[in-house]
Amino acid sequence: MDKAALIINLDKKEAFTVAERAIEWFKNKDKKFLIEKRAAFQLDQKQRAADYQKIKREADYIIIIGGDGTFLHSSHHFIGSEIPLLGINVGHLGFLTDVETEELTKALEMIDNNNYNIEKRMMLQTEHYRSEKKINSSYALNDYVINRDPDSQMLKIELYINNELVNNFRGDGLIIASPTGSTAYSLSAGGPIINPRQIKAILITPICPHNLHLRPMVISPEERIRIRVDSDGRSVKGCADGRQKNEIIPGDEIYISGADQELSIIKLPDRTFYTTVKEKMHLA
Amino acid sequence: MDKAALIINLDKKEAFTVAERAIEWFKNKDKKFLIEKRAAFQLDQKQRAADYQKIKREADYIIIIGGDGTFLHSSHHFIGSEIPLLGINVGHLGFLTDVETEELTKALEMIDNNNYNIEKRMMLQTEHYRSEKKINSSYALNDYVINRDPDSQMLKIELYINNELVNNFRGDGLIIASPTGSTAYSLSAGGPIINPRQIKAILITPICPHNLHLRPMVISPEERIRIRVDSDGRSVKGCADGRQKNEIIPGDEIYISGADQELSIIKLPDRTFYTTVKEKMHLA
Amino acid sequence: MDKAALIINLDKKEAFTVAERAIEWFKNKDKKFLIEKRAAFQLDQKQRAADYQKIKREADYIIIIGGDGTFLHSSHHFIGSEIPLLGINVGHLGFLTDVETEELTKALEMIDNNNYNIEKRMMLQTEHYRSEKKINSSYALNDYVINRDPDSQMLKIELYINNELVNNFRGDGLIIASPTGSTAYSLSAGGPIINPRQIKAILITPICPHNLHLRPMVISPEERIRIRVDSDGRSVKGCADGRQKNEIIPGDEIYISGADQELSIIKLPDRTFYTTVKEKMHLA
Amino acid sequence: MDKAALIINLDKKEAFTVAERAIEWFKNKDKKFLIEKRAAFQLDQKQRAADYQKIKREADYIIIIGGDGTFLHSSHHFIGSEIPLLGINVGHLGFLTDVETEELTKALEMIDNNNYNIEKRMMLQTEHYRSEKKINSSYALNDYVINRDPDSQMLKIELYINNELVNNFRGDGLIIASPTGSTAYSLSAGGPIINPRQIKAILITPICPHNLHLRPMVISPEERIRIRVDSDGRSVKGCADGRQKNEIIPGDEIYISGADQELSIIKLPDRTFYTTVKEKMHLA
Repeated sequence: MDKAALIINLDKKEAFTVAERAIEWFKNKDKKFLIEKRAAFQLDQKQRAADYQKIKREADYIIIIGGDGTFLHSSHHFIGSEIPLLGINVGHLGFLTDVETEELTKALEMIDNNNYNIEKRMMLQTEHYRSEKKINSSYALNDYVINRDPDSQMLKIELYINNELVNNFRGDGLIIASPTGSTAYSLSAGGPIINPRQIKAILITPICPHNLHLRPMVISPEERIRIRVDSDGRSVKGCADGRQKNEIIPGDEIYISGADQELSIIKLPDRTFYTTVKEKMHLA
Repeated sequence: MDKAALIINLDKKEAFTVAERAIEWFKNKDKKFLIEKRAAFQLDQKQRAADYQKIKREADYIIIIGGDGTFLHSSHHFIGSEIPLLGINVGHLGFLTDVETEELTKALEMIDNNNYNIEKRMMLQTEHYRSEKKINSSYALNDYVINRDPDSQMLKIELYINNELVNNFRGDGLIIASPTGSTAYSLSAGGPIINPRQIKAILITPICPHNLHLRPMVISPEERIRIRVDSDGRSVKGCADGRQKNEIIPGDEIYISGADQELSIIKLPDRTFYTTVKEKMHLA
Repeated sequence: MDKAALIINLDKKEAFTVAERAIEWFKNKDKKFLIEKRAAFQLDQKQRAADYQKIKREADYIIIIGGDGTFLHSSHHFIGSEIPLLGINVGHLGFLTDVETEELTKALEMIDNNNYNIEKRMMLQTEHYRSEKKINSSYALNDYVINRDPDSQMLKIELYINNELVNNFRGDGLIIASPTGSTAYSLSAGGPIINPRQIKAILITPICPHNLHLRPMVISPEERIRIRVDSDGRSVKGCADGRQKNEIIPGDEIYISGADQELSIIKLPDRTFYTTVKEKMHLA
Repeated sequence: MDKAALIINLDKKEAFTVAERAIEWFKNKDKKFLIEKRAAFQLDQKQRAADYQKIKREADYIIIIGGDGTFLHSSHHFIGSEIPLLGINVGHLGFLTDVETEELTKALEMIDNNNYNIEKRMMLQTEHYRSEKKINSSYALNDYVINRDPDSQMLKIELYINNELVNNFRGDGLIIASPTGSTAYSLSAGGPIINPRQIKAILITPICPHNLHLRPMVISPEERIRIRVDSDGRSVKGCADGRQKNEIIPGDEIYISGADQELSIIKLPDRTFYTTVKEKMHLA
């Protein structure tokens, strides 16, 4: 992989410094590289500026400097390409951004020496139907979340798998997560941790269910989830990866299954998924 | 107790029939009674019509025909009085409305024969301060809930007890419940069941906390809770008993402790709290 | 599949009647069949009597009449063969024995008409080392459980995955379950439900962990778990599928991963995994 | 309070040093004091040696140097007396032993200056009946635990409150805890934290219940719990505060309610219950 592109969350001060170190490294190595244009201007590197289209066309790999939110958001621009992404965390260690800033140079060297792994992460594909017409569709690297508005009462949720009504419950909502998303919101709602490097699966985690015996379920990406939601007349929203929220009205149907696309992530061989779990959760 | 007042949720069809049976019983017994005015008009009993003020002034006891929501809502009109409330459930068995409709006549007879218990239920008192000025205060029979708007990210919540910072966590929100409220929303969020007939306590239940080791806490009504919330600029709302929602902005402080008022509830001697728990939760 | 063998838990009275109906069906159809010998003698069918060796050699498929415990226990005799097993439940509906007794004839007809599915269920393989010598090894269809003796204090458990220390915790024990075992003991200990028909995975569920932030983990069958246990001098026991218990002493190492063998289970096309989940858990 | 007695867990090396510093302080202050006799001999202080009887007769207060286990065990000797206990933790901070060793001198000074609080901690009282004859009774400061033997299958547990069958479930066992015990084993089994300084209550926490909708319950010390246990013929054991285990056989009845005795604990005014919770659970 030769030509890198930098995407940087410049809301975080530290990201600025890290980005400058990356730029210096690329220059010293005489490498071609691009910088996402808003960041390029702020970093006074106009000649490197590129929009997402250009990055997608030209970059061999992408370095995202920020937190998991930045990574998640940026990743949506590259679905369908096979360009791999490397996350450098600024602030707290993340699951997607698990390279520490002090490891930046080491990481760049390792990539330069072909000493890295590319992980193919499973994504979810969601389709929103109203009156049998598809009104929206999206991919999700982490999760698709249906959540109650605090002004409304408990939702009534019907969960179908492969066209069979599996559950009919009241609660605050429902999280449909990929293994990558198992360590995000689903974890707070009581879901298990799924190794995203090895397992292809869909995790269904109810949010504050009124039926106390509900449990998170792990099913196959080949299976097809269908969800119907009813509330007391208030709006309900569904959202993939915390991005655009879509209103769900009674009668709408949300279909979710494993996506035909995967996301490529660059992982350095010296950090396993478990190392990050341990550090994030203060385990061993 | 001589003079009853009827409060009826006429959105539920069955409530109509039940109310008519109650009216017939009162008439046969030649008892004086009042009917909350909107219901009185719908039931063609204008001469019995009374607003909440009049009911509060004149009634010896109040019969609420509806669900737990109706009971909860109506009860707020009688805080500060000692008029006891009896809940007749229409639809599902409730914790507050635990007299079945078929037991209506039996219940009225039992009250007439002084064969009933009056339970004093602890309430919560909440005060909302902004810039050291109290901008709102309310009572809660069930709970005071702070909940994230689905459009906002995780809240940052600071929980103080007796002026000591006890917890500082990120999550979807926080429920401060009375024992009566322990079987309501708090239960869905993972809280324990507290016998409200016997225990005076405050239950603190986090909603989908990001810190996985958080646990519900049971503290004394004499203790004073203080809460500060920060979000990513979006509005956060606090709400007592699912009624009026108040916006909480960064810097605001919510104080909660046991109230100086209790609510009087009429309970028939043949149904314990545990009987209702069992039936609601399909236990024994 | 032509030649059946019957394995029957005759501790359960109903099993007797069900077995007789099966025998009658086989005789009417003029089918050859075997009966596990203890049951054969009790059912007065000595000429059909066969020990597990003979059954394994001669039967094309096996019908197990009993509960999940009977199925689990019997299945261990057929590991390494590809003979498929059908479970007829006597008593409560089971996850392994999910054909109701009244469906017996229908099930036999369906098999006779080649109208059935064969599911390959993943198993676990466990190896117990002491002083670098293997002292025991076993397969598990459901789970391998390490549990504290009630006379001992909390265990200290070290969990390694792929030779990396992932967790070091105190608690009552640990369950390593297959997807099939996810609906058994692991579920009581807080684990998720995993669709065993579709997912190959290993589920790690701690039992009453002292560290409150521990969560069940779902990892790949390709990964290798290593466990070390320390207690306060008392014995600790490890057990595959609730069968033979083996004492684990400090310094011992237990290795667990996906087995090279699978178990073949006959499933009728009209009952999905979710149908059984719903019925067992009173969901929809 | 003038005359102290020292109880020391000399299995822990650090306890030796701490004890010597306490002895030195008493000598410098010219205070009379006793030392539990086994420790007295090891510390070469034979002239101070006293057995538990003598300590109970003569001491004004007792200093326990060890962990929560030492405190719990020792406390049983002083039930029925009102002699207050102070716990100095050696090793990890404990809930009962919440004075750090480096605070020892400060603590002794504070007691000397009457600058301390005495907390009355609620205890549980248990009675074990067989064929209507009481065969055992005990007090518990933390909890009474019924736990499955790992060799037996799930227990069948009947839980009665005030003579009403409240629950009938299968599982690994049941914990009946005081508020003091809410931070011990019950917490690992999923129970809430109850402020033991303020709340009188009994906490019922099931251990790995097969019925997934079971929740911990908080009831009044005035209420009376009755438990019956059935297993598959194997022995079941009940145990108060992790001390003597008593076999429970089918038909036995265990009665538990709040005790008529309380335990007096010395608490220094500068450490609240919440401070300890925070430190133990890494909260704020």
